[in-house]
Amino acid sequence: MNAATFVLFGATGDLAQRKIYPALFNLYIDRKLSPSFSVIGLGRTEWTESDFRSRVEQSIRTFSRRPAVNEAELNAFLDLFRYCRLNVAVPEDYEQLLELVRKREQQLSIPENRIFYLSVAPELFETIARNIQESGLGSVSGWKRLLIEKPFGRDLQSARALNEQLSSVFAEEEVFRIDHYLGKPMIQNLQMLEYTNPILQALWKNQYVANVQITASETVGVEERAAYYDKAGAIRDMFQNHMLQVLTMFAMQLPRHSTAEDVADKKRSVLASLRQFHKEEVIHHVIRGQYTSGYIDGKPVAGYTEEPGIGAASNNDTFIAARLWIDNYFWSEVPFYIRTGKRMAEKSTRIVIEFKDPLDKYSRTNEPTTPNLLIIDIGPNEGISFQLNVKDANNDLKTEPIRVHYAADQDDVPEAYENLIHNALVGDPTFFARWDEVELSWKWVQPILEAFEDKANNFVPLHLYEAGSDGPEASRGLLEEDGFHWWPALDSDAATVSHIVNKKGEECKYEPVR
Amino acid sequence: MNAATFVLFGATGDLAQRKIYPALFNLYIDRKLSPSFSVIGLGRTEWTESDFRSRVEQSIRTFSRRPAVNEAELNAFLDLFRYCRLNVAVPEDYEQLLELVRKREQQLSIPENRIFYLSVAPELFETIARNIQESGLGSVSGWKRLLIEKPFGRDLQSARALNEQLSSVFAEEEVFRIDHYLGKPMIQNLQMLEYTNPILQALWKNQYVANVQITASETVGVEERAAYYDKAGAIRDMFQNHMLQVLTMFAMQLPRHSTAEDVADKKRSVLASLRQFHKEEVIHHVIRGQYTSGYIDGKPVAGYTEEPGIGAASNNDTFIAARLWIDNYFWSEVPFYIRTGKRMAEKSTRIVIEFKDPLDKYSRTNEPTTPNLLIIDIGPNEGISFQLNVKDANNDLKTEPIRVHYAADQDDVPEAYENLIHNALVGDPTFFARWDEVELSWKWVQPILEAFEDKANNFVPLHLYEAGSDGPEASRGLLEEDGFHWWPALDSDAATVSHIVNKKGEECKYEPVR
Repeated sequence: MNAATFVLFGATGDLAQRKIYPALFNLYIDRKLSPSFSVIGLGRTEWTESDFRSRVEQSIRTFSRRPAVNEAELNAFLDLFRYCRLNVAVPEDYEQLLELVRKREQQLSIPENRIFYLSVAPELFETIARNIQESGLGSVSGWKRLLIEKPFGRDLQSARALNEQLSSVFAEEEVFRIDHYLGKPMIQNLQMLEYTNPILQALWKNQYVANVQITASETVGVEERAAYYDKAGAIRDMFQNHMLQVLTMFAMQLPRHSTAEDVADKKRSVLASLRQFHKEEVIHHVIRGQYTSGYIDGKPVAGYTEEPGIGAASNNDTFIAARLWIDNYFWSEVPFYIRTGKRMAEKSTRIVIEFKDPLDKYSRTNEPTTPNLLIIDIGPNEGISFQLNVKDANNDLKTEPIRVHYAADQDDVPEAYENLIHNALVGDPTFFARWDEVELSWKWVQPILEAFEDKANNFVPLHLYEAGSDGPEASRGLLEEDGFHWWPALDSDAATVSHIVNKKGEECKYEPVR
Repeated sequence: MNAATFVLFGATGDLAQRKIYPALFNLYIDRKLSPSFSVIGLGRTEWTESDFRSRVEQSIRTFSRRPAVNEAELNAFLDLFRYCRLNVAVPEDYEQLLELVRKREQQLSIPENRIFYLSVAPELFETIARNIQESGLGSVSGWKRLLIEKPFGRDLQSARALNEQLSSVFAEEEVFRIDHYLGKPMIQNLQMLEYTNPILQALWKNQYVANVQITASETVGVEERAAYYDKAGAIRDMFQNHMLQVLTMFAMQLPRHSTAEDVADKKRSVLASLRQFHKEEVIHHVIRGQYTSGYIDGKPVAGYTEEPGIGAASNNDTFIAARLWIDNYFWSEVPFYIRTGKRMAEKSTRIVIEFKDPLDKYSRTNEPTTPNLLIIDIGPNEGISFQLNVKDANNDLKTEPIRVHYAADQDDVPEAYENLIHNALVGDPTFFARWDEVELSWKWVQPILEAFEDKANNFVPLHLYEAGSDGPEASRGLLEEDGFHWWPALDSDAATVSHIVNKKGEECKYEPVR
């Protein structure tokens, strides 16, 4: 285990409090941090060490998945933390920081292994990187690494510019671009699922797969992020990064003996095989939506343009559905349908693989059988299900669909940030986005952005959808054109019949599988 | 629905009481019997109609899966029953029976559709068949059918003789040979499972399957059937009929549009493809066992030779394990392991399909992964599970096996006899053993019988096993030779770790999957 100094920009921020400190704490109690580990928190606020540690302690007591039952352990953990006031634009502050880092390295006999975590606004990335270099913080005899949060640019050009700035200070293998979907245990499980399960591997190809549906739906609205979100939209906030990353993690075909480099190469190869749309074609394959007022869990919620900080005339997208093709040997002619939205009926991230039924036309009953499905639940619960057909025990000619189900025990599952911070500490880049992946994603998304923004031609209409619904009607049309339909993003239990609370708060029973 | 007269030989017997009356009752309340349906019970006992109906009523109150809550309904059902004393060897008794059958047909305006159910000792089959013919009972203007219970002969020669006798009175399509395993809902489901589930169909072949294990284990001993059982043994009582039927139902490859004749043809084709053993080879592929005293559910039980009615020197088999090959396109080189025994640790009928792992040799960890399994539970509970590998959420290099599970709701599942009687009433022979299947089964089993009975050469030793165990050690050796092992016949829950009560009644936890 590498002893290292963890330098956290944005230590007073929301992400640090909700995710980073709890993740570090859980790694600590799992003995996944080196005994010589040091955290230096940075922020503009004038905090004492004690202010900072109280904040970290409060964060753990509020957000850690495991409680801090052992006081001695908690205190030993808090003892790792130091605070340093820093204005990111002031070079002198970095000199002061370097002094503190060196002092801690000497105190703890830590080699010059430094990990810089940038949990700050993306506008500051370049300034920070430059100052790390100029102050000498980045001149290490051990290793240095940069962990950065999204967004990585807001289009192809700005992403390239940002990468150029960072790459003058950090080599590509030193940059760990966080896409927290890649930290989710079921996403980290996807490659293992495929290559340790011969029966899945046998089926994981266009010979058997009719289509693949990836849904990431949220019930929340824009929340406190209006200023950022209204300029980004679902296309930048979710689609270009999380959704395309989930797609590549699913669609890549790995040799079992694969390294992190193999994984990134295969992901790049999937992205490079994505069929590119021209700006004029976007309307046929991409649906843009924005939520209006409606009901979530039976409670009325505001429409997007009524949210604080959003203009009444905003035509920003809060929902994206798209049809993609991966033109390679394995997935040729298999449509991938991807959707993501805010203020949807369910909070759920799920991959549904619908299988072809070559024998369906020979059915005795002329009733088509229900397709076989493989359902991979990524969040909020993790699980794996198959949908199969069995004989109706009371009728020789009828079949009924069943769900063969596995639900992971949620108690013992690390959070995404635990996985990602641990991976970065041990230098494993498998679950981070390499630059060429980011670049290819932006390249694929670029004509969509241009189509959205071309006000003169109005290429892509903005479809309104009621909060608490499954998104705009047009998103259903996308699949109906191909003879398919969206499978539900969530089942309330493992049965085929789900109980769903409708938008007025009444429970309605529906059978999603017929 | 065909109106018919159901003529039951053996109406005072145990099978009638435990299975046939409850089955008829449940068919009645499911409206699966014709409104013009008539039952005539036959026995040597001098019973009044009222004696008989009390017996039927008692049977339903004791053994029906659904209670007789509606008295009017129960009385209407009992009203279908008539009793006729009959000595099977006395021709005059059949004349009297014919008179009663005709009377009921006239009363109820039933066409001459007669179903003769022979729930009697097999020695009586021929006598009854001859008398049905000679009395004129079998000369009908509608249809006649013969339902017979096992055993159908005790070797190839006697089975052929019996068939010849029956076929002088009943045409092959009029004979419904009951193998009650074919009535079990999950067995009736097997063909539907295969041909309505493309993902199973894709995997159901030697390209993916490493081996198939079929277990039918009982916890009971010889019970009241010593005289019969000590002459039959597990080889005739279970193996030649039930086990080979389950094998064929699993292994046949059906077109979706299949008829009963297709099914029988495919089953015959599987049986004809069974690799035949010579008498001298039997020892390499067949294990014979007999139980000694031991513990079942923590209670001591007697050994086979101590059972009432069994001689102390009996070397009859109560356990058979065998390795078979089906030399056809689909199953070439896939070993099928079949075992059945009395006084085993678990009551369970289960098919386990173990899949090949062509990538296992490329494993990163050198720890072999756990094989993928498809587990089909036939009884006492019905279910379908997959065993898959997932990443250990706390260790990037380890996998752990999980079970993806479906358990049928047992409340609403018809019993085997309901299915079989209903199938016979509507004239559907799909789930009965056609003569050529029975003949081929005996033909395949014949060298095994001869090897067992060749006392001079003692070809096949009798292995003793403790009551409450998994059978003799030698049965494990059969699989170990091929690099496999038996998968457990039962899991106490859907998890990979099962809680099993050991033979001394202590609960022991074991992990069957490593």
